[in-house]
Amino acid sequence: MAGGFSLSSDDWLIVEKGFNPKKQGYYESLFALGNGYLTVRGSLEENPPGSYRGTYMAGIFDKAEGYVRELVKAPGWNDFSIWFQNHRFSPVESKVLSHERILDMRKGILHRTTRLKDPQGRIIRFESKRVVFAHQVRGAVVDVVITPENFSGNLRIYSGINGDVTNLGYFPRERVKHLNLVAMRRSQGQIYLEMETRDDKTKIAVAADTVLENPPEGTYKVNRIYGEKVAQVISFNAEKGQSYHFTKWVSTFTSREGYDRQLEAATTDLLRDMIYSGLTENLKKHLEEREKEWEQAEITIKGDRKAQKGLRFNLYNLIIAKPHHDPTVSIGAKFLTGEGYKGHAFWDTEFFILPFYIHVFPEEAKNLLMYRYYTLKGALQNAKDMGYKGAKYAWESADTGLETTPSYGLREDGSMVKIFTAEEEVHIVADVVAGIYAYVNVTGDYDFLYDQGAEIVFQAARFWLSRVEKRRDRYEIRKVIGPDEFHEHVDNNAFTNYMAMLNLEYALEIYYKMKKERPGQLKALVKKLKLKKQELEKLKTVSKTIYFPYDQKTELVEQFEGYFSLDNIKISKTDRSGMPLFPRGISGDNVEKTQLIKQADVVLLLYIFADRFSKKLKETNYEYYEARTMHESSLSPCAYALMGLEIGDHKKAYNYFLKTSYMDLIDANKNAADGIHAAATGGAWQTVVHGFGGMRVRRGELCFDPWLPKKWQELAFNFIWKGCRCKVKILHGSMVIQLEGGKGKTAQIHVQGKIIKLKANCPTRIKLRRKY
Amino acid sequence: MAGGFSLSSDDWLIVEKGFNPKKQGYYESLFALGNGYLTVRGSLEENPPGSYRGTYMAGIFDKAEGYVRELVKAPGWNDFSIWFQNHRFSPVESKVLSHERILDMRKGILHRTTRLKDPQGRIIRFESKRVVFAHQVRGAVVDVVITPENFSGNLRIYSGINGDVTNLGYFPRERVKHLNLVAMRRSQGQIYLEMETRDDKTKIAVAADTVLENPPEGTYKVNRIYGEKVAQVISFNAEKGQSYHFTKWVSTFTSREGYDRQLEAATTDLLRDMIYSGLTENLKKHLEEREKEWEQAEITIKGDRKAQKGLRFNLYNLIIAKPHHDPTVSIGAKFLTGEGYKGHAFWDTEFFILPFYIHVFPEEAKNLLMYRYYTLKGALQNAKDMGYKGAKYAWESADTGLETTPSYGLREDGSMVKIFTAEEEVHIVADVVAGIYAYVNVTGDYDFLYDQGAEIVFQAARFWLSRVEKRRDRYEIRKVIGPDEFHEHVDNNAFTNYMAMLNLEYALEIYYKMKKERPGQLKALVKKLKLKKQELEKLKTVSKTIYFPYDQKTELVEQFEGYFSLDNIKISKTDRSGMPLFPRGISGDNVEKTQLIKQADVVLLLYIFADRFSKKLKETNYEYYEARTMHESSLSPCAYALMGLEIGDHKKAYNYFLKTSYMDLIDANKNAADGIHAAATGGAWQTVVHGFGGMRVRRGELCFDPWLPKKWQELAFNFIWKGCRCKVKILHGSMVIQLEGGKGKTAQIHVQGKIIKLKANCPTRIKLRRKY
Repeated sequence: MAGGFSLSSDDWLIVEKGFNPKKQGYYESLFALGNGYLTVRGSLEENPPGSYRGTYMAGIFDKAEGYVRELVKAPGWNDFSIWFQNHRFSPVESKVLSHERILDMRKGILHRTTRLKDPQGRIIRFESKRVVFAHQVRGAVVDVVITPENFSGNLRIYSGINGDVTNLGYFPRERVKHLNLVAMRRSQGQIYLEMETRDDKTKIAVAADTVLENPPEGTYKVNRIYGEKVAQVISFNAEKGQSYHFTKWVSTFTSREGYDRQLEAATTDLLRDMIYSGLTENLKKHLEEREKEWEQAEITIKGDRKAQKGLRFNLYNLIIAKPHHDPTVSIGAKFLTGEGYKGHAFWDTEFFILPFYIHVFPEEAKNLLMYRYYTLKGALQNAKDMGYKGAKYAWESADTGLETTPSYGLREDGSMVKIFTAEEEVHIVADVVAGIYAYVNVTGDYDFLYDQGAEIVFQAARFWLSRVEKRRDRYEIRKVIGPDEFHEHVDNNAFTNYMAMLNLEYALEIYYKMKKERPGQLKALVKKLKLKKQELEKLKTVSKTIYFPYDQKTELVEQFEGYFSLDNIKISKTDRSGMPLFPRGISGDNVEKTQLIKQADVVLLLYIFADRFSKKLKETNYEYYEARTMHESSLSPCAYALMGLEIGDHKKAYNYFLKTSYMDLIDANKNAADGIHAAATGGAWQTVVHGFGGMRVRRGELCFDPWLPKKWQELAFNFIWKGCRCKVKILHGSMVIQLEGGKGKTAQIHVQGKIIKLKANCPTRIKLRRKY
Repeated sequence: MAGGFSLSSDDWLIVEKGFNPKKQGYYESLFALGNGYLTVRGSLEENPPGSYRGTYMAGIFDKAEGYVRELVKAPGWNDFSIWFQNHRFSPVESKVLSHERILDMRKGILHRTTRLKDPQGRIIRFESKRVVFAHQVRGAVVDVVITPENFSGNLRIYSGINGDVTNLGYFPRERVKHLNLVAMRRSQGQIYLEMETRDDKTKIAVAADTVLENPPEGTYKVNRIYGEKVAQVISFNAEKGQSYHFTKWVSTFTSREGYDRQLEAATTDLLRDMIYSGLTENLKKHLEEREKEWEQAEITIKGDRKAQKGLRFNLYNLIIAKPHHDPTVSIGAKFLTGEGYKGHAFWDTEFFILPFYIHVFPEEAKNLLMYRYYTLKGALQNAKDMGYKGAKYAWESADTGLETTPSYGLREDGSMVKIFTAEEEVHIVADVVAGIYAYVNVTGDYDFLYDQGAEIVFQAARFWLSRVEKRRDRYEIRKVIGPDEFHEHVDNNAFTNYMAMLNLEYALEIYYKMKKERPGQLKALVKKLKLKKQELEKLKTVSKTIYFPYDQKTELVEQFEGYFSLDNIKISKTDRSGMPLFPRGISGDNVEKTQLIKQADVVLLLYIFADRFSKKLKETNYEYYEARTMHESSLSPCAYALMGLEIGDHKKAYNYFLKTSYMDLIDANKNAADGIHAAATGGAWQTVVHGFGGMRVRRGELCFDPWLPKKWQELAFNFIWKGCRCKVKILHGSMVIQLEGGKGKTAQIHVQGKIIKLKANCPTRIKLRRKY
């Protein structure tokens, strides 16, 4: 490598050996490179058939002929191929003698070595490194070394920017064109492509230049256009056994950043700057940035390489998806790694992904919540459209916050099925509020709470006030879908009702806290929101009398009204990995008539509000619902792992943890090709830190109660609590925690019920009693 | 055929037998269908590789990444393919058992019958008729009958509109994208595609619907999108030996016609109307329209089927290119049949193509000249850009009249060559004026002359006044290219100077005529043009003293100053068809040093102004230049045929006529794939009517002096003279001419020097003396 560094130790590497055309989509998701601004899937430079290549940029959405507004596939820029006479070397057109790719997760570099043979026996060695820069998110490089092993002759390389891209459509084999060509240049040495989205004319600009080091005499380079592609063709006389080193530099900007008029100048200037500063310099800065991120995010698990490696893959994805100082974008259910769920953000963001950022990159956690503030307008419109008041956050949210859930889905047989989540899965509203609650609790960022958060919380509360119905002496929420989507149109889903209650309580809490601390700001907010006294009164009443379905005798929370009278079927069969299988005669078509549930619903609620429920109640419900949970969602296993560890049932937690952290690595759901399961990566982090690490915020205090699997010799991680960086190392029987920061700084934590005072830069060792 | 008509006699048919993938481009040009509004090339419905398919619409130009503004390839709508399981029946993917296509030139219908066999031996018979309507220029139909000959099973047809089209670029294999996707619909039964040009946002809309007659039970139809394509997929259970009849209806509009806002409604409404009125009704009206056109344009040659058929192909192309009542478009050098010369109009239009329309469809001839009026603004700008005054018509003209000649061309070895025609081939300015002159002379349309023509003529004259240079006692025009493009940067090209003189004389003539007949209008025009008295004086002086290089002793006109001192090389070798070959040692690189010329230059001039030169002079020059003319232009052979017949050298005329009329049919220049040579089609008409028919306007009178090749028993054609329709039949030894129209109408013609008076509806037989 021109940068002069070597591959790092094995736990940091994801390796592909050999070329399997049918596994391209899977490896493309696994080998995605990104920086929060953009992600490029790990497709081969030659784009063989069967490739599901894609570059996705945060916040670029478009509908056009799509069924809903969706994340746009941006122009690709890693096209690079080698020609000898009329033969194009590629894993499809040539014979693959060997093929290996390695993702170095620590460095964020994708390495490739492929040896290809043409029908005449000519062998080319193709070695590449691809980097999406972390220090300069609008820059990337593809570094290629070509060696004709056993022949000499004129080689041509084709290195392009490809604007001829479409999103996968709704029907099988449909394609949606989201970008139109605006401009293309090839006359300035560089090549330049500018496209715009069909609906909003949001522009994406890409410039590229491919440089051959020490070009042999007679080398020539010509820039050509092919419809929506623009490419550089470099023709050179290659000698047998000699290596030829190409560096393809790429820069990309969008008009979202306010460069609308100077887009071309900004893009081509950056490209020139990067080329001028050179590969070594850029790689150095990239690695420094990646190192800083890993220093903060890294978790080490000693004694369990499998757990370590799986976890790292999850952390890697959380790092490359870190929002890039942009308060107008969120993280979608597949990050930016694929078109699954159309780039939309769900409750996954606040419930599963946000905790990692709150504790590791709090300034980016704030951006994720700022996105909800930025999209509040859309949420207000959604409520209005549905006949309610306040803010109804979209079940699926793109860039405006308007509802983007498709109205219909397709069954495998091609028939249509109505999707009700937009109308009914209303818990999203309270989930957003829970995200604010968790963020403020951990960071103490009251400025955000009062400046933006409060408005969200009030408007969300207002939604609930318009959504609840009074029946007899209680308030009910009818016709909803809880997290368990097997059961639609249910009344009084425990999760939804309780989350709504938290939302109302939190609104009241903020109101009175602001009244005391920021009366002027509150007054302004009350005026802005036209908040009436009667509303405040109703808020109090509803929060106290909202119905919670619960059987006092059995201590079982009823997932929703009438759930207990459904067919009481338990899971009896599991697959080889221990995951449940549908009992005979039960399928997606009739499961709604049974107590089988898709994913954690009551159990997740009890985990979130662990302090509000007795251990007995949590155990009872965990046992009851675990026997009935099909784990048909990537969000489910980690919820059971977390609750298991909370109540002391660690038997299944480790297995659920591996399920979660290896979900895409082993392609458990056969859909890794569509993108990485973002919620699972956050769930893996939560299972390790909140679960095994036992670090939870309880009643506003940071508490530890760890439990490590036997073979884990040590678990170490870093986190930020109220703006202070802490390092913690957990062993069997003790833990060491150290507060970083200026002299005199102190903090207080609870370990297994005891208060521990921390002084800055003094590692504190605390003995642990055996938990169970 | 659903319309119920049969194929007509053989001379009307162009036939392809068997499928040769390499000849696709050739047949696509030959089998083009059109109506002046649009032309669709005769590509196969399956678009096999090697196809150079294209639909072109009059007046739709765009530059984008092209080197110059060029005719845009519009969305295609004849895509139609048949699938059985995973096999697509096509001449490439299947075995071709038989393939035949027939263009019925009289009816403007392209017939096809292809039998294809899949690898499992399943045979499909595909029969289609394609019609671009003449009565409704925005409508077309593809009528398909599919017969599974030896199997039953589920067939799927795919019938689409294809917006994923690019123009051929400048470099080999380059492609220019001119259209961006605006909208696509598939939900209204029909499919709809709307695209717009990149530069001006001119919109093209296409709607289509494919109807299966008597669909078998279980048939279903679904509309799908694939990026920039939208298609209907019809799935049906086909029975062995049964035929299934599909009618694909197409309508297309552009925003040029002022439908910018209601484009979609206009397009889809027309489609519905056509489907409602049905195939029989639409074909009936189409055939009526075509019949009307042929009645006017047809020329019959008895006794020579080869000449007859070749001529008909030329007439067919002139008919389908007839401008559709649109005064803002011209006819390009390849009509709308291909991308050769980028759809640009040259002097070919006025010199070679216009005469046909003047005599056959005078109202459309007027539109062609109105195009020059419409583009006068561009011509004024061109002159300004070059530092001259008045109007400099573009050597290559697109839609605005601004110069669109590329600055560079590509040699076969890929190197660049500067093109000087935009700056130097200035005779175009006078050629436009000559077109007006000819039109007014034949039609007597003085309204056009005074309302529009005069302004063109004056501005053109003004250009010459600024372009000439006074040397000694004469005016010269230096550094030009004449029609013979072998010689660049020459001074005082005889053709150019003489044409300029005509332009000046004609300006004076109009001036004085208007002064007498329309003094008020002249005054207004003088004011508008700020025409000064001194200009008028200079006009007189220059027209009288412009230099004409001529050797009084030999009576040879010198093509340009210094031509006679070039290497006096004559043509010594010809190819098998009698066409000249370059003498040894001479090629494109050094031909400029010789007297070899590319095409008729002096001879063309002498033919145009035949009345102004003595027979002796014409003979001398014809003989001299014919021996030195390489005929490297499609414009050349007909000029020699015409002059030969003018002066009585008929020996070569017939051969030159066949050269001209069969130029594309036999692909003489190996470039028929790029489109039909429009000038040659007009040249073929001129050779027959002006040449063999001997019908010419001399001193304002219509004169006949025919000569027929021996085997021609009879030549008959129609023409319009001063608004009167005439029919003429020429035999060996006599001719019959009949004036049509109301009772009492009379006309006067000259036949071989004698004045003949014609009375309406009275056929007049005139004896002919033997010409030579």
